Amino acid sequence: MGPSESVLWVDPRYTLQAKEQVERVEVVEVKGGLLKEAARWIRKKRLGPVGYDDATLTCRDFEALEKAAGSRRWVPAGGMVEELRAVKSPLEVDWIRRAGKLTAEVFEEVRGLVRPGARECDLAAEIEYRMKRKGADGAAFETIVASGERSAWPHAKPTAKSLNENDLVIIDLGAILGGYAADMTRTVYLGKPSARIRMLYNQVREAQERAVKAATPGQRAGEVDSQARKVLDKKKLERFFTHSTGHGVGLEIHEMPRLARGDKSRLQKGHVITIEPGVYLEGLGGVRIEDTILVTEGKPENLTPATKDAWFAS
Amino acid sequence: MGPSESVLWVDPRYTLQAKEQVERVEVVEVKGGLLKEAARWIRKKRLGPVGYDDATLTCRDFEALEKAAGSRRWVPAGGMVEELRAVKSPLEVDWIRRAGKLTAEVFEEVRGLVRPGARECDLAAEIEYRMKRKGADGAAFETIVASGERSAWPHAKPTAKSLNENDLVIIDLGAILGGYAADMTRTVYLGKPSARIRMLYNQVREAQERAVKAATPGQRAGEVDSQARKVLDKKKLERFFTHSTGHGVGLEIHEMPRLARGDKSRLQKGHVITIEPGVYLEGLGGVRIEDTILVTEGKPENLTPATKDAWFAS
Repeated sequence: MGPSESVLWVDPRYTLQAKEQVERVEVVEVKGGLLKEAARWIRKKRLGPVGYDDATLTCRDFEALEKAAGSRRWVPAGGMVEELRAVKSPLEVDWIRRAGKLTAEVFEEVRGLVRPGARECDLAAEIEYRMKRKGADGAAFETIVASGERSAWPHAKPTAKSLNENDLVIIDLGAILGGYAADMTRTVYLGKPSARIRMLYNQVREAQERAVKAATPGQRAGEVDSQARKVLDKKKLERFFTHSTGHGVGLEIHEMPRLARGDKSRLQKGHVITIEPGVYLEGLGGVRIEDTILVTEGKPENLTPATKDAWFAS
Repeated sequence: MGPSESVLWVDPRYTLQAKEQVERVEVVEVKGGLLKEAARWIRKKRLGPVGYDDATLTCRDFEALEKAAGSRRWVPAGGMVEELRAVKSPLEVDWIRRAGKLTAEVFEEVRGLVRPGARECDLAAEIEYRMKRKGADGAAFETIVASGERSAWPHAKPTAKSLNENDLVIIDLGAILGGYAADMTRTVYLGKPSARIRMLYNQVREAQERAVKAATPGQRAGEVDSQARKVLDKKKLERFFTHSTGHGVGLEIHEMPRLARGDKSRLQKGHVITIEPGVYLEGLGGVRIEDTILVTEGKPENLTPATKDAWFAS
């Protein structure tokens, strides 16, 4: 075999689809189990060391593969695909840009419906419905609409709860277009904000903007995270920022790089990442602001350009 | 430690949610990585043999756990949770029954919109929107609306294609309610069916009904599959039935048991399974009919009771 031989094994449900969608790869229909077939192929080709994706293959599947393929040297190669995916081609950026624009448009449309009395689940349904009607493949993840105390749960699922006056409402949404995802969060306040709510909101907004500005080629991912934390720390809010600042976005909603505390990896031109600081106060609620950002040689480009004014929605 | 000690490790994003939703289990917030923390606990408790879910843990995660936990005997215990889940309690059945009823209602409502000119993606969006408005947690999987030649792809994604006169249209949908899923497929024909279309449809319908009748306690899963195949075989259609007859449904959309060719496991009272034979003819289209079925001591109960009349939708 040559180094450039590629085979895609599919079960019969996907044969017609693969024939239509896959190029320059041999498509083989398999009835008796994909791993068995892969093992047979490895034996037939008398492969030497075999690389495998240890970051996605389960222990059980690997064991089955190992047994069926006979004695071989196995080389864990997890992360290879993820590394290749992190830097996006112009074509990929274009799809994410379109997904981001669609996502921002849907938010702007639905924002007027974010009012006391509306139910979280209805708003989430409305958002996903509008994404699809605008041509999205679907939502990249289950849309979050979390209001009042529930907004202090960073990954709350929408419930039948109605929004109330003076609720903080976190709305986290993202469309998929051409297979590529965007990811965006806005927080809306339903009423006239107190000084404390203003302070919380403005601090998160400033943290987000600072981190976005820092997202340039050569910068360490951990330094971008640190920029957001510094702003929050000025008002003693850093300890309520309980997750990392962001992650890559592309074919999957969580890709490389990770923008986490102390991460030493460096941003590159063509990385598409989220910047999403948030603070979460038990009993009061949360604020998170998130954009999908393209790292460029110049200013970082915001691919989810929707308003960040939080007060005028009620 | 006693045999009944349970710990749930969560990252800080889920701490508040876990405190509210989890009972009789210690919830521990972890900042530095869940596996590391689990390993620390294993060492602290001086555990002997450690069971782990080899069917879901990746090679890489297992290796990290193994390294961090020190020398231990590791016992693959994959499938334990799946086995426990296969037989549903009355409370669980009740949730699936409600999810199934909701799913059937949404299908009946949307069926009138399945007309030439409607777009696949709009129908899918409409279905998921109505599920959520009726109180579903969401769709259990991406709704399939596949028309014309595309209905011959068993797992086609909806596209912007409009339905045409004389298309076969496969609609595969399922709501989640209280965490539990239902799963249902209907096929609609947009026009006056030819003798061939009638034959295809009626044969799949008969195959489905035969298999449902066979789904009784003690029956082998493979025999239920075989019942469907026998009906299709009478008209030489069995070779176009390219997947297995069904699968368990519950907290996940694919659970035990599998109703596949030759499967020797036996159905039990309280199993909730799909029965979903289909035939797929390249260039012409496909027909699939699927219900979610409760195995009882008496007649199997259909949990997705929606009409199976295929001709009157246009």
